[in-house]
Amino acid sequence: MRKVQNKMDRQRGDKFYEGKAKILYSVVGDSNVVWVEYKDSLTAFNAQKVSNFAGKGELNAKITSSLYRQLGRQGIETHWLEDVDARNMICRRVKIIPLEVVVRNRLAGSTAKRLGFEEGHKIDSPLVEFYYKDDVLADPFISDDQALLLGAVKDQSALVLLKKKALEVDRVLTEIFIRAGLELIDFKLEFGITSEGDMILADEISPDTCRLWDLKTGEKLDKDRFRRDLGGVAEAYQEVWNRIEKGSV
Amino acid sequence: MRKVQNKMDRQRGDKFYEGKAKILYSVVGDSNVVWVEYKDSLTAFNAQKVSNFAGKGELNAKITSSLYRQLGRQGIETHWLEDVDARNMICRRVKIIPLEVVVRNRLAGSTAKRLGFEEGHKIDSPLVEFYYKDDVLADPFISDDQALLLGAVKDQSALVLLKKKALEVDRVLTEIFIRAGLELIDFKLEFGITSEGDMILADEISPDTCRLWDLKTGEKLDKDRFRRDLGGVAEAYQEVWNRIEKGSV
Repeated sequence: MRKVQNKMDRQRGDKFYEGKAKILYSVVGDSNVVWVEYKDSLTAFNAQKVSNFAGKGELNAKITSSLYRQLGRQGIETHWLEDVDARNMICRRVKIIPLEVVVRNRLAGSTAKRLGFEEGHKIDSPLVEFYYKDDVLADPFISDDQALLLGAVKDQSALVLLKKKALEVDRVLTEIFIRAGLELIDFKLEFGITSEGDMILADEISPDTCRLWDLKTGEKLDKDRFRRDLGGVAEAYQEVWNRIEKGSV
Repeated sequence: MRKVQNKMDRQRGDKFYEGKAKILYSVVGDSNVVWVEYKDSLTAFNAQKVSNFAGKGELNAKITSSLYRQLGRQGIETHWLEDVDARNMICRRVKIIPLEVVVRNRLAGSTAKRLGFEEGHKIDSPLVEFYYKDDVLADPFISDDQALLLGAVKDQSALVLLKKKALEVDRVLTEIFIRAGLELIDFKLEFGITSEGDMILADEISPDTCRLWDLKTGEKLDKDRFRRDLGGVAEAYQEVWNRIEKGSV
């Protein structure tokens, strides 16, 4: 008989993956879920630039948890199940689709530069981009046809679904962030496939994975403060959490 | 009354565009056509590497002219109308779509490297890629959605048509080159819109714009001999022309 698990008796099992920002552990007695620990490390440019600050893992875990609960209430299925504590959460086990799905509401960063637009160029409708998750290749930007050639998803319809889901997340997240006084410039998502074959939102949403500008002043409150050596990194992450916590009540 | 023009009385007008490999002139008394002169210059890596050899313009003009006549007989509309002499031709005037349309039958060059495949990796079905024609930006690789955002074509259906036409050209060209003992690895096309609004093949097809490997030995007979300092550049272009001339009879 399968033991009924609840929040109180989750027991952390073996570590099976360590990424740049999170560690994944199994959960004893339940192969359908994973234990996710958020680290304090901060990396950029495919981990060529590395730092950390105390409390960063906790802030990103709390931000992700809050956003995923809010997305869930808006009908967007995510891998988040419950929090263990401030920096540890239990998530559904999924097979991650090896694509970074980037949604842009304004052009900034690499794409603005590559396509010759000024930082923050407003676009008429959101742009969805795919980057192939491969550290050795440094996550190259790829076209839809290349994503299919690489076998990143099973077919064209899966790509269409991925874009549709990413745009739904954009619509809901944009509203959440506006309530927090922030403009969602762009962000990176990762999706996974459940054992039932459903495509759901996985990974995290945090100042590590979003560009967030203050709605009034345009001040950057995200990882660009680290990438571009603007200072006040920890303060910006804390500020995002404060505003989301306030806005979510 | 509009003067009837024929091959004998075309008169070259003003130069209005000079590119890396060709010069475009107007034709006196006929605004629907352009006079195209092929240059001897040879450039690579967005003109960071420059050279030339005597007779190169003539070879590329003859190769393009032969291929465009053969494509025309297979129902593929091109801008080529008639040759003036060995390095000058008359073409329909079109508005060039600012996309380099690359078709790959095997992965080689930049894409093989970016996606982590060995040079010459065979793929199941041809891959079509778009590069945005912009010298300042160094012709960046772009996705379909980025092509639409940049306004390179008017809508999604134009992109679909562009891919369809590129794949038709690939099918016919592959056969033509096989008869010449050459494998068509990949190539770059440019399309233009006529005054009637039709999308037709423009620019050129030559060892400058194709990767061509000897069917038996795999020897490179294209601009990679120049890009990669393999020597025998002029001989390779001459060999391609000799084989196409022979195969086209």
